[in-house]
This record gives sequence, structure tokens and C-alpha cells, in this order.
Amino acid sequence: MEVKEALERLDALQKKMYAYQCAASSLYLDSVTVAPKNTAQGRGVALGILAGEEHKLFADPEVGKLLDFLEERSGELTFPQRRQVEELSRRWKQMSRIPTDEYMEYAQLTNEASDVWHKAKEQSDFASFRPVLEKLVAFNRKFAGYYDPDKAPYDALLNEYERGVDMAYLDKFFAAVRDKLVPVIRAIGEKEQPDDSFLYRYYPAQGQRKLSDYLMEVLDLDRGHCGIGETEHPFTLNFNNQDVRITTNYDEHNVASSMYSVIHEGGHARYELNIRDDIQYTCLAGGVSMGVHESQSRFYENLIGRSLPFIRAVFPKLQELFPEQLEGVNAEQFYRAVNKAQPSLIRIEADELTYCLHIMVRYEIEKQLIGGTLEVKDVPETWNRLYKEYLGVDVPDDAHGCLQDSHWSGGSFGYFPSYALGSAYGAQMLRNMEGEMDVWGPVSRGDLSQVSAWLKDKVHQYGGLLTPAQVVENACGPFDPTVYTDYLVKKYSELYQL
Amino acid sequence: MEVKEALERLDALQKKMYAYQCAASSLYLDSVTVAPKNTAQGRGVALGILAGEEHKLFADPEVGKLLDFLEERSGELTFPQRRQVEELSRRWKQMSRIPTDEYMEYAQLTNEASDVWHKAKEQSDFASFRPVLEKLVAFNRKFAGYYDPDKAPYDALLNEYERGVDMAYLDKFFAAVRDKLVPVIRAIGEKEQPDDSFLYRYYPAQGQRKLSDYLMEVLDLDRGHCGIGETEHPFTLNFNNQDVRITTNYDEHNVASSMYSVIHEGGHARYELNIRDDIQYTCLAGGVSMGVHESQSRFYENLIGRSLPFIRAVFPKLQELFPEQLEGVNAEQFYRAVNKAQPSLIRIEADELTYCLHIMVRYEIEKQLIGGTLEVKDVPETWNRLYKEYLGVDVPDDAHGCLQDSHWSGGSFGYFPSYALGSAYGAQMLRNMEGEMDVWGPVSRGDLSQVSAWLKDKVHQYGGLLTPAQVVENACGPFDPTVYTDYLVKKYSELYQL
Repeated sequence: MEVKEALERLDALQKKMYAYQCAASSLYLDSVTVAPKNTAQGRGVALGILAGEEHKLFADPEVGKLLDFLEERSGELTFPQRRQVEELSRRWKQMSRIPTDEYMEYAQLTNEASDVWHKAKEQSDFASFRPVLEKLVAFNRKFAGYYDPDKAPYDALLNEYERGVDMAYLDKFFAAVRDKLVPVIRAIGEKEQPDDSFLYRYYPAQGQRKLSDYLMEVLDLDRGHCGIGETEHPFTLNFNNQDVRITTNYDEHNVASSMYSVIHEGGHARYELNIRDDIQYTCLAGGVSMGVHESQSRFYENLIGRSLPFIRAVFPKLQELFPEQLEGVNAEQFYRAVNKAQPSLIRIEADELTYCLHIMVRYEIEKQLIGGTLEVKDVPETWNRLYKEYLGVDVPDDAHGCLQDSHWSGGSFGYFPSYALGSAYGAQMLRNMEGEMDVWGPVSRGDLSQVSAWLKDKVHQYGGLLTPAQVVENACGPFDPTVYTDYLVKKYSELYQL
Repeated sequence: MEVKEALERLDALQKKMYAYQCAASSLYLDSVTVAPKNTAQGRGVALGILAGEEHKLFADPEVGKLLDFLEERSGELTFPQRRQVEELSRRWKQMSRIPTDEYMEYAQLTNEASDVWHKAKEQSDFASFRPVLEKLVAFNRKFAGYYDPDKAPYDALLNEYERGVDMAYLDKFFAAVRDKLVPVIRAIGEKEQPDDSFLYRYYPAQGQRKLSDYLMEVLDLDRGHCGIGETEHPFTLNFNNQDVRITTNYDEHNVASSMYSVIHEGGHARYELNIRDDIQYTCLAGGVSMGVHESQSRFYENLIGRSLPFIRAVFPKLQELFPEQLEGVNAEQFYRAVNKAQPSLIRIEADELTYCLHIMVRYEIEKQLIGGTLEVKDVPETWNRLYKEYLGVDVPDDAHGCLQDSHWSGGSFGYFPSYALGSAYGAQMLRNMEGEMDVWGPVSRGDLSQVSAWLKDKVHQYGGLLTPAQVVENACGPFDPTVYTDYLVKKYSELYQL
């Protein structure tokens, strides 16, 4: 076999995997948007089979040989080709350990679980979700062994979301974050809170939809390539760098909820849309890791979106859309309201400062669940206990507790820490961005084009060409979480005059 | 190989094909509902590959051997198994003649064509659609040869939509229909037309959405298994008998447009939802032919939906939703308005009487296009000439002419005659239904459950278990188009007092 022919085969293989992923994404998107409620069964049959076909295609021993062949000739490959071979080899070793049957069964299970979780959350009924969650945990513990038999199961899962990250690393990271932030949170507890009641007036969905349109414009998201839909739980889905979808959820009694969802998901979308053309339809298309992805979404949401210059820029539009609701409110008051730091129940509505504590609850529970020291039946109790311990709040029911997030129902264990890591990466990126250019002048005029250009140049374009650590280092030097904690301490000390 | 093992393989094969069809359907549904405009390219790559995989899977010589093996042992098979083998053998012979490359290229082309057609229609710009249409015609002429090399190309295509139907058959059928209906249409031309101006008042989409909800309830379409969406061109899409979607399009200045679209597509949906469980995920799931499918949609739309008893039943709801628009209008006036017979430009808005003439225009053009006696560039001129000749109307532009339908852009040539055949099948079904039970009593009370039960029993449940001709014969004896023409002549003679 010639290298040229091998590369053509590699290319064809990756295009096929892209096609299977498109199919699964499309069926998933349908299932959470317009699909009638009682249709999960037939979709599960299809998803299971497609996953099985994809698995058989990729886990084929011939693919292993092809990858070995190319690895041995890596000197003849371009850098993107080498990275594809490297990444595919890693995945092939994992996948070829998973029996096709199990892979298909798991795909069917996650489809079914999504449905069960939705209903369980609606009725705050953990008992109905429990059997499915038990299966999901069991699968993930088993898959962890396939991913990396030498690692502790949860470490193996963490490594899937952020290459190189493990419990030892996160324990240290979270401890440092906790040490720095808990005193600030305590100090704020003694202070008077700003009035944020105007955020919770009646904001009709129709007006909020217009706000979404406006925000997508501000984020420079081309609607010809980026759609917006409505789902229970906001998310971003990418087919390729020409086709990305975000979703949001309109709470008519909370204008900040969808506003910051759109900016958050818009950040994910910006990343995907900015990835280079020459790696489309390969395993390197798409953001490199969940940590880096969340660094981008939370960069837009918090570092930009919850900054005073940004709020000054968009506030006139908010007032235009909601003149009565925001009567007598000014940009500074809005800024204080959306930055009110207060321990609360719902992660996606949490402020920047207490957000990490929400993640730590989930991290602790996942660590024990996957480690085998916590049973699924005890999740609600543990959840509620940890919320009391970390955040000081009483969880009234599971809908506002351990059923609030979709991640576990989608089979994602080890994802949550990415949010915290991403927040920390983002703070460091901002520090470097500020060193290199005038960030806040254009932002205060509602112009994010330079911010976006910097991120495209330093982060987005690479997709999976660089590893997560390389992306972070490339953008802002070796990772240093104190930049993040310093940023938060400074921001909240000013806000609350500590 | 044992028969048991062969049947398991057959079952697995059909489930895989179901999965590929789900994937393609989902991507298609997305493309015409929420997908951003400029995303056809990446979706085309995926659709092309999925079609290729499906084709390779099915056209495999091993599948041919499997089918031969089972055909030889058909004595050991159940009736549904025998029918599966029969149907798959027929398709396998066709598919194995189509090279995978061509099959993939065609799947990509139809995805792209849909996009091009939408834009061309929007701008009434046939020139921009022409190159794609030329390719589509060329592919269909070639594929016709693969389907059945012994038939004239258009006959081979017609046979795909309605087994056993060809040009000789349709020429006779259409001639008979024309002979009976044209004199009636002429006679009506001399008569005074009923006032239908109230149909074209302003009917906000929001109210029309509520009307759709109500009509779906009347048709007993369980929303947990049947969704409704909005698209340029209404259609029905079935994943399986638990998951069907219909779409409609709201014209705010024509209340009858979406109303009858919903009833029409609802008829398709009723068919799909009523198909037996034991043939799901096989090649026999889904309606047996386009002709039989259209017989059901047009049964609900016209025979029931445009009947006086039905309109009497639903009119109070219409008045409740649109009190101002329908002030001073009664059910009888509404009945006359939605049955106004008048040659017009748009097929899907045509009345029952002139509808067939719209089909004949398309039939003539397809016959010549696929036969090779008409060039694509001459389609608009021929279209306009035939509309003048058959319907006496002047086509103002291609958007209201040869660009109005989506069928050709989806690669469907030979589909249109199904509408006419279906209408005729339906009339015969109604005659027999009337002979066996009280149809109009329950309908006049808005109760369609008995109509639906009859159709389920005689037609729907079988899916592809019987051939189209068998379904028709099973429901109402040998096909006799004069029942249809007699029905129309009687209905319109009464309406217009001829």
C-alpha cells in the first residue's frame, strides 16, 4: 500500500464517521425539539443500529492496521494528517475494546434515558430516573476500563473530556479555588445585596426572541450558518463549521436566563464556526475538548457578557425591547443585578462566583458514583447534603436538585469539571488579550469583532489540531488557575466593596 | 444455512435499512424546517455517504443469495416473510444494477436540488433551477433503465409509484376522466359562482395553528405520536407507526389552504399510524404505494373534509376561532366556498373537480421529459401552454407555474399521477363504505372514528403486505374509475344545479 492510498482510505473513513455523527446529531436534535413525546422507541432502534454500524466501521482490525501503517510513515505526513492518525489511533484502541453489542446498547440507552429524564424532571420524580441512571453508571464504569484499563475509572472518564486531567489534578484545583473563593462568598453574605427584582418581572417570550436575534447579531453569528431553537435545556450542536445550532429556553419571569444562555451557547457556536476548513470532515473538526469549549462559552457569557462595558453597550436594546419592565433601571443597576452573588440551587442560573461550588457538588458525586463508593439510590440525599455544606442552601425537591442537569441522562460523567476548568482558562485568555490589545473600548461600543478575531487566531481555528493543553498554552502560556481566582476576587471585591 | 438463521439475517438487514432511512428522513426534516439556509453542503456530504452505505449494504451480492435462498424455501415462510422476500428481491434486482457512486451522487443531488428549488421558487427564477433539473431528469432516465430495462423509461418510473401502472393505462384513465369532467367544468363556467371572499380575509397564523390542533383532534391523531410542523410545502414523513410528522403552511389570507393541507396530510398520517406492528422495521412498513397513500389523504381532504356533513360539524369551531372573519357566514356558504370549481393556477389549492387537469399537465410534461421528447429548457413554455389548453388560465410567472411543486426537486418523476389514481380509489372506497355502514351520521357529529376504523381494517393495517391493486380490490372490488367520475359529476351538478 502506498501512503497516498492509505491517506485516501483514512479520509474516506473519517467522512463516513462524520456522516454517522450527522445522522445521530440530527435524530438527537429532532428528539429534543419537535419530536412527539412517545416516539423514543423507534428512534432508539435506529440510533442503536447507526451506532453499531459506526462502531463496526471504526473498530475494524483493518483500521488498526491502516493507522499503524501511517504511524510508521508519519515523516511523510503533513501536521494535520499526523494529528489525525495520532487521535484516531488513540480512539481506535479504546473503541476496539468495546464490543459492538455494548456500544449499540449504550446508544439506545442514552436515547431512552433522555426521555425518561425529561419526564422525571418534570415531575421531580427521581425514582423513575433511578433505574436508567443505574444502567448509565454501570456502563460508564465499564467503558472507563475500555478507555484506559490502567487508570481509575473516573480518571479515565475525565481524560475523555479533558486530556491529561485527573482527580489528583482536580482535587488540587478545586481546593485552591475553594480556599480563595469561600472567604469572598462569606464576606458578601454580610453585605447588602443589590436590587435585582426587575430581572424577574414578566418578559414575554416574543420579546426575548427578539433579544436573542439581537445578541446573535452582536456575537456576529451568521444566521445562514447558525440556527437557534428552543429546548428544555440549552445546548450547542455542530454538524460542521458551516452548520451550527444553538438552543435556549425562555423563562418569562427571568430575562437574564435566556439572555446569558444565548451568549453562552453563542460562544460555543463562535468556536465551531471559526474552525479551519482544511480539517472539516476529519476527527479534528470540532472543538478540541469540553474544557476549551467551555472556556469559550463562559468567556462570552461571563468575562464579556457580565462585564460593565458590554452591558452598557447592549442595555439600550434591552430597554427598547422591554421599556416597562426596565423603567427606571440603568445599565449599572443591570450590571449589579446580573452579577449578584448568592448561593442558589440551579447551576445554569448561578453567578460567576458561586458557580464553581455547583460544579464541585457534581464532581464529588461523580467521583464516588464512578468510583463505586456511592449508590445511585443515595444520589439525592448526597446532593442535598453537599448543597447544604458547600452553598448553604436547602434543596426543596429533586427537580431543583439532582435532576436539574441533562448531562448524566446523556451518559456524560466527567463533563462537569470542564465548566470550572474552562472558566479558569478563559480568565487567563482575557488577561493575555488585554495585554495585547484594547479589549474594552470596542466591547463598550458593542463591537466584539476584535475579541472574536483574537480568539479565532489563538484558539478557535485549530479545532483538534492542538491538544487542549497546547491550545491554552498557545493562547496564554502555562495554565495558572490563580489568574481566575484573582479575577473573581477583584471583580467581586469591587462589586461588593469588600 | 438454516431458514431460521436466514430469516434473522433478513431481519437484521431490514432493521439497518430502517435506520438509514430514519437518518435520511431526519436530516431531510431538519433541512426543510429549522436548518439555517446555507448549510446544504455539509448535509449533502453526509446524505451522500449514508445513501452509499445503505446501497452497499443492500446491493451486496450476499443479499441476493440470501433472498434467493429464502425464495426457494418460501413454503416454510409466513405470509409476511414471503412478501418481504418478494419485495426485497424486486428491489435488490434494481439496486444491484445501480452503481454505488451513482446512487451517492444522486442522494447529494436531491439534497442540493431542494435548496436550489426553494430559492428559485422564491425568486420565480426557472433559469437557476434548470441545470439541477436537467441532472435530475438525466438521472431518472438512467435509473429507469436500472429499475426495469424492458420498459419505456417513464413506465419504469410510474411502476415505482404504483405497481402495474403504465402510460397505456394512464392515457386511458385520464382520457376517461377528461371526457366526463370537461363538460361539467364548461357548464359551471356558464353558472354564477358562490361568494368565497370570506375565505381570503385576514386569518392570523396563531388562530390557524389552533385550528390545526383542533383538526388533528377530529382526525384522532395522537399528538404523542404525530407532530405538526411548518414548511414551505406541506408533507407527511413517517419514521414508523409510532412516529409520524405532518407539516403545513399558513397563508394568512386563505383559511382553507392550511385547513385542507392539515386534513390531507392528516389522512396520510392516519394511514401510517394504523399500520400493523408486526411489519414495523421491515420493507413492508409504510403505505404500500403513492396511489393508495393519496387515496387516503384525499379521502380525508375531499370526500370527508369537503362534504357538507363534515363542514357542519367543524364550522362552529371555525366561527369560534374566527368570529369576525366569518361573521354572517353559515356552514352551507362555507361548504359552497370550499367547493367552488374554477380553473386556477396552483395544484394544491385546486378544487376537487379541476384537480385532475393539474395532474394531467404534469403527466404530459413528465412523459415527454423522461421519454426524451421535451428538453428541460422548454418546460416553462410547455407548462404554460398546457395550462392554457387544459384549464384556460394564463400563467403569470414560473413560481405560479412549473416551479410550484417540490416533487421534481426531490427526484420524484411519476409521482403526480398517484394523486389522480388515489382520488379515484378513494371514491370507490367511499361507495363501499356507504354500503356497509352509516358514514354521514357520525361525520356530521364530528366523529370520524368509524370511518377511520373501516379504513384501518380494509386498507391501512396491511402496509405493504398486499400489493396496491390487492389493497384496492380488498377494500372495494376491482378498480373502476367511473365511480370517481360519477361521484364528481353528481356532487358538482348538485352544487351548481346543472
